[in-house]
Amino acid sequence: MSKLLAVGSTAFDAIETPFGKTDKILGGAAPYIGLAASQFGIEVAIVSVVGEDFPEEYLSMLRKRNIDTSAIEIVKGGKTFFWSGRYHNDLNSRDTLETQLNVLGDFNPVIPEHHKDADVVLLGNLHPLTQLGVIEQMASPKLIVLDTMNFWMDHTWDELMQVIARTDVITINDEEARQLTREYSLVKAAQKIREMGPRYVVIKKGEHGALLFHDDNIFFAPALPLEEVFDPTGAGDTFAGAFSGYIAATGDTSFENMKNAVIYGSNLASFCVEKFGTERMQKLSKEEIRKRLLQFKALTQFEIELT
Amino acid sequence: MSKLLAVGSTAFDAIETPFGKTDKILGGAAPYIGLAASQFGIEVAIVSVVGEDFPEEYLSMLRKRNIDTSAIEIVKGGKTFFWSGRYHNDLNSRDTLETQLNVLGDFNPVIPEHHKDADVVLLGNLHPLTQLGVIEQMASPKLIVLDTMNFWMDHTWDELMQVIARTDVITINDEEARQLTREYSLVKAAQKIREMGPRYVVIKKGEHGALLFHDDNIFFAPALPLEEVFDPTGAGDTFAGAFSGYIAATGDTSFENMKNAVIYGSNLASFCVEKFGTERMQKLSKEEIRKRLLQFKALTQFEIELT
Repeated sequence: MSKLLAVGSTAFDAIETPFGKTDKILGGAAPYIGLAASQFGIEVAIVSVVGEDFPEEYLSMLRKRNIDTSAIEIVKGGKTFFWSGRYHNDLNSRDTLETQLNVLGDFNPVIPEHHKDADVVLLGNLHPLTQLGVIEQMASPKLIVLDTMNFWMDHTWDELMQVIARTDVITINDEEARQLTREYSLVKAAQKIREMGPRYVVIKKGEHGALLFHDDNIFFAPALPLEEVFDPTGAGDTFAGAFSGYIAATGDTSFENMKNAVIYGSNLASFCVEKFGTERMQKLSKEEIRKRLLQFKALTQFEIELT
Repeated sequence: MSKLLAVGSTAFDAIETPFGKTDKILGGAAPYIGLAASQFGIEVAIVSVVGEDFPEEYLSMLRKRNIDTSAIEIVKGGKTFFWSGRYHNDLNSRDTLETQLNVLGDFNPVIPEHHKDADVVLLGNLHPLTQLGVIEQMASPKLIVLDTMNFWMDHTWDELMQVIARTDVITINDEEARQLTREYSLVKAAQKIREMGPRYVVIKKGEHGALLFHDDNIFFAPALPLEEVFDPTGAGDTFAGAFSGYIAATGDTSFENMKNAVIYGSNLASFCVEKFGTERMQKLSKEEIRKRLLQFKALTQFEIELT
């Protein structure tokens, strides 16, 4: 069976959207990634760090979804990373109200021996040097997928360039792609990012879908038009988790198969936003994913005879 | 052979984009619509109005593209509608610098007898009472397609509701759909618009593509990702013209065929934005459209086996 190793934050999130607000709930990139990737029948391990305040029930929930949590470090006396944010009315933008790095500030992931042979490595959004440290510890992964954000472009440019150079696939949102390349056109931005290292560039456009670039090929996966987006938190991590999980399950890194992977990324992300936090992903079934795939086909597939 | 009748403005445009600026060039909805629709081998007539200052060479260019211009009224001593605008750096928004309605202010289209039997009627963006007046003159078109904009929502709400109630298909952009329905979700907005009359709702999202809604079905046509968008003027009219031209050519108003029509709308619009004004559309060949259709297929079509 194929193995996926994902590194990322685990957090308490407090979220406000136009539809309501939450107390501290499970958040961070790693749980979203794990819950998405584990849908593909592969071995999924997440490497992360939490404080002593982190409830055992969250870990046990992840284990029940077939996620290996043995590499989640629990720091004695430490407090778990906390983030709170408020979404604007259109849900396309948000303000961070508070960030307490806590144990994440000293996170120095140690990959257990039995996880070093993972086929696919997904580096969730973290300090680029932390991401590089993970790459150094791995044996010879078939695919390294990187997620990052504008914060690292602003503060750790050189280190970010180093990790980008070592990855096969980067997932990044449209504004970040523009910031990274100073190109407004996403086609030009993707070309420049590929020159930095990754063979594949996935540009996420939120409610406007995602673009996959490779050589001269472009593929587009729309977001599913929904009556209501309830909470966008974790949609990008879910996308990356499903994308990487599908690649690990199929063992096929061709462009044709990457197309399917972005469709699955978009598929699972469309569930994620239907409820607060990880709630929807915790109960998601394979049958629901299958039905939604049919919706994606109906949404995008057409038959025009060439004359 | 099928007949399409299109009513819309004909203008002089003066356009500024980050890439340059033009003197007065050919503009208005009608030329864009005509140039797009005439690609589909049907009889296309445009009903419009110009002043005595309108160059004969523009009319002759349209006729050479197999567009019937006999219903373009030339007002003696009148001046042609003039619009000038400046696009912002992202090309997604623009400021109108000047509008001179001139002969368009008194436009009262009279449909020639031999055009009253058109199969498809496309009502370009005009005063809703002008659009209603055209519907009244037609015999029994198979399909009435309406384009409109926020200006009429602000100033002639009741009249706009009357014309919307009489149409089969409405094309409208995302912000306008939200304004028309006070719904942020485009899925909900489309439902409300269908309750106003049209069986089909096309919501145009510019560089983010277009959504087609009918009953419980949704189809999505992406915009082609381009290295450079040069001038977005007329892209919406070109979309509507190609959409309507394809429907007229096929004589098929089923949802399956409407899907193809929005793909062709997006296809031809992707050419329109490559040059200033109508320049690209004047020289567009069937072979170029065919090749771009292959690009749209590559961009959107995928093969996932359901398990």
